[in-house]
Amino acid sequence: MEHELGRSAPTHKRWDATIAPAVRVQPGDVVHFATREVSDGAITRHSTAPDLAGVVLEDMYPLAGPVHVEGAEPGDALAVEVLQLRTGDWGWAAILPGAGLLPAGEFTEPYLRILELRDRTTTPLCDGVEIPIEPFLGTMGVTPAGARDVPVPPPHTGGGNIDCRHLTAGSRLLLPVFEPGALFSAGDAHAAQGDGEVAITGIECDMAFSLRFDLIKDARIPAPQMSRGPGSLTPRVDGGGWYATFGVEPDLMEASRAAVRAMIEHLVTQRGLTREDAYVLCSLAGDLKITEVVDAPNWMVGCYMPDAVFTR
Amino acid sequence: MEHELGRSAPTHKRWDATIAPAVRVQPGDVVHFATREVSDGAITRHSTAPDLAGVVLEDMYPLAGPVHVEGAEPGDALAVEVLQLRTGDWGWAAILPGAGLLPAGEFTEPYLRILELRDRTTTPLCDGVEIPIEPFLGTMGVTPAGARDVPVPPPHTGGGNIDCRHLTAGSRLLLPVFEPGALFSAGDAHAAQGDGEVAITGIECDMAFSLRFDLIKDARIPAPQMSRGPGSLTPRVDGGGWYATFGVEPDLMEASRAAVRAMIEHLVTQRGLTREDAYVLCSLAGDLKITEVVDAPNWMVGCYMPDAVFTR
Repeated sequence: MEHELGRSAPTHKRWDATIAPAVRVQPGDVVHFATREVSDGAITRHSTAPDLAGVVLEDMYPLAGPVHVEGAEPGDALAVEVLQLRTGDWGWAAILPGAGLLPAGEFTEPYLRILELRDRTTTPLCDGVEIPIEPFLGTMGVTPAGARDVPVPPPHTGGGNIDCRHLTAGSRLLLPVFEPGALFSAGDAHAAQGDGEVAITGIECDMAFSLRFDLIKDARIPAPQMSRGPGSLTPRVDGGGWYATFGVEPDLMEASRAAVRAMIEHLVTQRGLTREDAYVLCSLAGDLKITEVVDAPNWMVGCYMPDAVFTR
Repeated sequence: MEHELGRSAPTHKRWDATIAPAVRVQPGDVVHFATREVSDGAITRHSTAPDLAGVVLEDMYPLAGPVHVEGAEPGDALAVEVLQLRTGDWGWAAILPGAGLLPAGEFTEPYLRILELRDRTTTPLCDGVEIPIEPFLGTMGVTPAGARDVPVPPPHTGGGNIDCRHLTAGSRLLLPVFEPGALFSAGDAHAAQGDGEVAITGIECDMAFSLRFDLIKDARIPAPQMSRGPGSLTPRVDGGGWYATFGVEPDLMEASRAAVRAMIEHLVTQRGLTREDAYVLCSLAGDLKITEVVDAPNWMVGCYMPDAVFTR
């Protein structure tokens, strides 16, 4: 059976087990959703950087749902098949000083880019840089056990704001169920994002999306898991090569920062980007990989940038 | 010009700026090397798990070199082009309790697998699992500034034991130069390894390899960087799909551990592997990615396993 939770359906901005389900579905059912971009309208296609000051965290993350899946019980896994994702006509990406991986002292001013998405397979970030559009939902999750007024931004073991760029159409997400009915919600759509989402945004956009729900009884998974069908995890950029910068530090977070700083410096000196566009590009198309995590006391994290984003 | 540092050439097991160069080369020169696997002969193709007790860390990591590159000065980058890599006939992979990502209490016994490499493109790890052979050098580095008797295992900003699986033939590694002549050494070859090398070994093997050296004057890079030509970073496994398990924790190291634990559990329950083979498989073919590192206070790390390693 198919259900509709369109743009006029109510959204919610907290994880809370007392929120009445927006729809009740059977395992195997499909729900068609539509959500606004993560600022819920505070940023428009005409916004400029000063408008970022008006974005209030508590008013962000409008989520569609909760979806109550009949028969879902704690200990089960909710299987969410991503059937279709259709972005809105435009999106935004930003630097919010202090909110990303790099400290506020390194990027002191808000920075905003509006990106066109309509009828496109790539979108220009700046002169000479085209970002492949690969939509996914930044937030898909079940309601945490007994949740009351829990903020959406931190991901949890039931998923939520997981920002996993590989959850594109055709993929399948498994989530542990904590509340009867699972109480699944989703939103925070991205038209593109690199592993890490280092500057704190992907290309934030409206999305119409269709998900199929199923149950795996008594699966007892500890946190989200996912599967995808055959093919590279980076199909849109494999036509080009790669450049990677590494951080070598006794802390994975510091190693990640060092890798991103080195990539920003590389993009500025070798590709002519501004520092701001370089940081945003890392967030939209750079992938953080843990290269080595066992040769104490130093770990190594790489920031991998595909050459395919550069048009010259 | 081409140079030879074959298996009879002396090796060294420390970073030390006082070690006499094994060869002096000009920028543009090629050196043909051969190194023994990382235990330097303590493990043989006939070894069994109890023999791991005889492996002494100080006697490991026989490195070929140092290569003195004429004209290299602090502030330059040494460019190392990986021209050719040819594994020995066999390799080994192990669990050394307490030495990998997971604490000693979770894997209490040494575990050893000998893997055949000769005339193969994949090698069986256990029943139903074939590891694609994708050779690279676990250790390539320049001598740290003023180094005296510095152990090889921890990587440093001049590289060394970086265990970057993407440095296959055709790739190019850039290393900051700290000592005049760069004093480059390499070894610790792997026939395969996943991002993270979580159980602390790849497929450890002998290797014959050819590297071309060049200089980028005054490049002032802070740590290793690399580039590769066009194509997926995982060409050997893209014919199949992917399964990923995630850890969601307020610490990236703990998130990595949670992701690997979940993958081991998945491989045991869904694929029928022993816990030991599952952990080793994570080390040889699982890739750690940082999915999200900005949604405080929880970060998310994924362990990605390619379906292509499973033959049934």
